[in-house]
Amino acid sequence: MIILLDAMGGDNAPDATIKGAIKAAPEINSEIILIGDESIIRKKLKEFYGKDSIEEIAKNVKIKHTTEQIEMEDIPTVAIKHKKDSSMVVGFKMLKEEEGDIFISAGNSGALLTGATLLIGRIKGIDRPGIAAMLPSEGIKGLLLMDAGANTNCKPINLLQFAQMASIYIHNTFGIEKPRIGLLNIGTEETKGNDLTKESYKILKENAEKYNINFIGNIEPRDCFLGEVDGLVCDGFTGNVLLKSVEGIGKFVKKSLTDSLTKNVLRTISAVPSLPAINEFKKKADHRIYGGAPFLGVKRPVLKAHGSSDELVFYYTLKQAEQFVKGNSVAKMTEAVEKIREVEEKNEVL
Amino acid sequence: MIILLDAMGGDNAPDATIKGAIKAAPEINSEIILIGDESIIRKKLKEFYGKDSIEEIAKNVKIKHTTEQIEMEDIPTVAIKHKKDSSMVVGFKMLKEEEGDIFISAGNSGALLTGATLLIGRIKGIDRPGIAAMLPSEGIKGLLLMDAGANTNCKPINLLQFAQMASIYIHNTFGIEKPRIGLLNIGTEETKGNDLTKESYKILKENAEKYNINFIGNIEPRDCFLGEVDGLVCDGFTGNVLLKSVEGIGKFVKKSLTDSLTKNVLRTISAVPSLPAINEFKKKADHRIYGGAPFLGVKRPVLKAHGSSDELVFYYTLKQAEQFVKGNSVAKMTEAVEKIREVEEKNEVL
Repeated sequence: MIILLDAMGGDNAPDATIKGAIKAAPEINSEIILIGDESIIRKKLKEFYGKDSIEEIAKNVKIKHTTEQIEMEDIPTVAIKHKKDSSMVVGFKMLKEEEGDIFISAGNSGALLTGATLLIGRIKGIDRPGIAAMLPSEGIKGLLLMDAGANTNCKPINLLQFAQMASIYIHNTFGIEKPRIGLLNIGTEETKGNDLTKESYKILKENAEKYNINFIGNIEPRDCFLGEVDGLVCDGFTGNVLLKSVEGIGKFVKKSLTDSLTKNVLRTISAVPSLPAINEFKKKADHRIYGGAPFLGVKRPVLKAHGSSDELVFYYTLKQAEQFVKGNSVAKMTEAVEKIREVEEKNEVL
Repeated sequence: MIILLDAMGGDNAPDATIKGAIKAAPEINSEIILIGDESIIRKKLKEFYGKDSIEEIAKNVKIKHTTEQIEMEDIPTVAIKHKKDSSMVVGFKMLKEEEGDIFISAGNSGALLTGATLLIGRIKGIDRPGIAAMLPSEGIKGLLLMDAGANTNCKPINLLQFAQMASIYIHNTFGIEKPRIGLLNIGTEETKGNDLTKESYKILKENAEKYNINFIGNIEPRDCFLGEVDGLVCDGFTGNVLLKSVEGIGKFVKKSLTDSLTKNVLRTISAVPSLPAINEFKKKADHRIYGGAPFLGVKRPVLKAHGSSDELVFYYTLKQAEQFVKGNSVAKMTEAVEKIREVEEKNEVL
């Protein structure tokens, strides 16, 4: 398996991408290709590991040299069209031409979604690809949220397709037999919510069997982290609000907890024995272990890492990438969507 | 000042309402009227305090006897229309006839909003009243979120009015000079978001001066708890998602933190010295100290307490009620809206 990594994408690139790749390399069976400016990468390697030949540091990591890079301020469509030798565009092209099995980038999100849609293309029958982000939860594998921000305005059919894709991804990546899929809503009753959720509830209920979705109904944000649901579908605006709330409350908790613990010296000292417990909690709630977010609905596997990803996030994302490819979710999605199209066409003919 | 309290509303009523009132009574300068079934209240008083005469327990608490109560399952409009001697309907009537200065209830939310709108009435010029909920934040007084769930589908004009009402409430209740009002969105740039937030941004920016709003632009949920914003406006669906996310993550943190701390006996013992720090954090993050949520946009002050409110929430809500009335926010809102109507009418004539 070959994992393509945009070495230049993200706030902490290329330091974090390089370190993450070198850390993950001995633990995975794949080859990692760092896509980016070779001279910069070599300089960094020298700085971090004392030698600039990547073969000597990790034999399953290679470099693909590129000369440009897409910046956070770039206009997505313009950048994808004109920066032809950027690490991101080259990554997509390699992915398309099957020179790699999956592409990971923490670069400009808009450009990544645009690039995936334009250069890789949507799965036939999928109206809108979406971001499937993992959130911490009491569930074994966390909670998959889709769409976490790609489509700010959605129709009920989009949510039905998100539910189908999320099911296939969760099943094939984490081995959960019939993933429980909920509709993110502000009440549990069928009649609750805004126009979109009311309509989506109906369409999800009616089509659950046909689409092979284990639809468990409306789920409120106050109950979604308790491990009773595996996948949560919603429009990208609401999903992004939920995702960023988790982040925001995380920041608040971290600050408040640290403030409380370090308020005075005496208390700091007395707190030391409990630090392992608190660290364990922090680890459990740490979003970094969940890695990147797959962009589902395009023809090849793409993982979007958070712009602020550090070394550890890239490490986890590389491991996750291997699982994603092994699960073969994209082929299974393509097949499932095709089957539904056939049934629908047959019904139309009859 | 007279505070009207629906003694029968909420999952823990009347135990929690009675205990909250008796706890708050010596600390406030107002009279509290417990509205509900007198025989039940007296029985509870006997059980909790050994005597059934409320005058002997707290001289500033009185009982207003009612015979019915609105249940959580009742259809709001039907209940408000037909249960004329329910604690909620009687509370609204007393509020309207100025037999009290503010009404608090943790009963059926739909009935409470319907009752406030039908029996008390909207402020002239306000299209949609909304719920203004307090969230924990690093700010001195927390963060006011409006609308937290009353209106699932909103127009930009509603958000402008929420911003105006939230400003007036925060200023008059907490003494913050020019409350910073943000628009809840999934990006900070003007062009980010869904159709509603894009339009709302424009209308807020254009009208900020006229409406006397210190509009600070888009705020993402990941930055809203850091104390850099005093009031956050959005549609009621999004607001309810944010509100319930805070609740959900709170549950998750509580469970995970407790699990981590009590994983084994040794660790539990070693954790004891740090418990004061953790308790301090828990207190800071405890939503209960923020009391109830004012329903702003109706002609008289109404506070909605969470259905699951306990004794402590009612205690804090009663104290908050006093501040709300003292701040005179409702009269100031009415005046401010009237002024804008006059300006607009004048402009139309010209």
